[in-house]
Amino acid sequence: MVQSEIRVRYQETDQMSVVYHGNYFTWFEIGRTDYIRQAGFPYQRLEQEGILIPVVEVQCRYIAPARYDDEIIIETTLEELASSKVVFSYLVKRKEDQARLATGMSKHLFTDRQMKRINLKRRLPEVYDRLQKGGL
Amino acid sequence: MVQSEIRVRYQETDQMSVVYHGNYFTWFEIGRTDYIRQAGFPYQRLEQEGILIPVVEVQCRYIAPARYDDEIIIETTLEELASSKVVFSYLVKRKEDQARLATGMSKHLFTDRQMKRINLKRRLPEVYDRLQKGGL
Amino acid sequence: MVQSEIRVRYQETDQMSVVYHGNYFTWFEIGRTDYIRQAGFPYQRLEQEGILIPVVEVQCRYIAPARYDDEIIIETTLEELASSKVVFSYLVKRKEDQARLATGMSKHLFTDRQMKRINLKRRLPEVYDRLQKGGL
Amino acid sequence: MVQSEIRVRYQETDQMSVVYHGNYFTWFEIGRTDYIRQAGFPYQRLEQEGILIPVVEVQCRYIAPARYDDEIIIETTLEELASSKVVFSYLVKRKEDQARLATGMSKHLFTDRQMKRINLKRRLPEVYDRLQKGGL
Repeated sequence: MVQSEIRVRYQETDQMSVVYHGNYFTWFEIGRTDYIRQAGFPYQRLEQEGILIPVVEVQCRYIAPARYDDEIIIETTLEELASSKVVFSYLVKRKEDQARLATGMSKHLFTDRQMKRINLKRRLPEVYDRLQKGGL
Repeated sequence: MVQSEIRVRYQETDQMSVVYHGNYFTWFEIGRTDYIRQAGFPYQRLEQEGILIPVVEVQCRYIAPARYDDEIIIETTLEELASSKVVFSYLVKRKEDQARLATGMSKHLFTDRQMKRINLKRRLPEVYDRLQKGGL
Repeated sequence: MVQSEIRVRYQETDQMSVVYHGNYFTWFEIGRTDYIRQAGFPYQRLEQEGILIPVVEVQCRYIAPARYDDEIIIETTLEELASSKVVFSYLVKRKEDQARLATGMSKHLFTDRQMKRINLKRRLPEVYDRLQKGGL
Repeated sequence: MVQSEIRVRYQETDQMSVVYHGNYFTWFEIGRTDYIRQAGFPYQRLEQEGILIPVVEVQCRYIAPARYDDEIIIETTLEELASSKVVFSYLVKRKEDQARLATGMSKHLFTDRQMKRINLKRRLPEVYDRLQKGGL
């Protein structure tokens, strides 16, 4: 599991005075970017190698609202890793009182630039191994 | 079922040259806003009456990417309506060839401004009835 | 001058219950996309030809707030066109009462994919001419 | 002058593989939020006191593009403070090589919740003084 920290931006709020629900997926993206970076191979470098990790499914449950200027913790966990796909899960907490604000998941494929599936285990075995150990 | 039409904005793309996955939830929001408007009671008015419809869960499956300047159709269906909650489902299509790009759902509660659950059927029976018939 | 119409999305509001000021630049982008499309050469095709029009300066003055679900008109005018740059100006109005909400401008260069300046007049004279007449 | 640090989010990029120009205004907002916090009176608290600081004008010049995963420094300077308005200026730099990416400004009024101008110097003299000394 990898922890990321952010602070809620004014831009992220909506007229309900809470964070707009769609923005949690940007936070999840920050979480898995940190996860992949910590695994020793920044996502930016993966893309330069011609490997994309497009999202094929996401889900989020909202428990309590995040508000402007809140300090937020995103906990990212590798749920499943196979040669051509990866699933992450996320827990979003308010830092101050550790209240659970949301949980979610995202499912991704490994593809080339033309969005054709590739076998990451064969293509970049080292990265595959690191991802698996990334959160340990 | 209610149909909405939008055109993909440059701002909605990311460096994979496709629409950023989190933006589909903004499109779903456009879809259900149109659904509720068509039901004869714009969401803006609901909020003025002190009734909020916060999102408690969303999900999206991505089938094919939407790209800049694509004309997009969002089909919004009322899946479930109860006195204190509502579930919408969504189908996102490319207008040109009617290709299915994504499917999704969102689950909402009816609450007051303090985000306490209310019974919409009792509070605004007319709106409740219209919602139920909204897509017919 | 070219007119575009949009409706304010919930996602575009912030906790001040008005449209977040940064979102006006997305609206300007919609305006100039429509301007360029009307000139007969969609921006998407320009990019496919290897021609980018990156923004080098923007400015916006806010007169009155736009609110959720408002119908908005964006008027886009070509202010200046030279062989390697273009300046657009924008007027944002509320459709209902034609109230002026904001004015702004954006200045752009014509570049290749490596963001090196190109001479549009020489490279695509037909597009250059059409841009100049685009709003007439 | 107050420094803020962020890392570019994937969501902030567009299909030109650079940060979408409109997002710099979100970064400016982070900068002035930090400026105001450092002045000892978080903006969140100001809003709770019924004081808003709506934006009436912004401007940005783009010098070099910011890219995904770049570490970014935002330098926020108080340019002008009067009893009913405040002007901030911003410098956006890439952390790695301190390259200047953009400069900008934002002009704001002090208002009450009904967006009527107030005199901050009279209403909250202590906050006014702190703002003036905020970046020293």
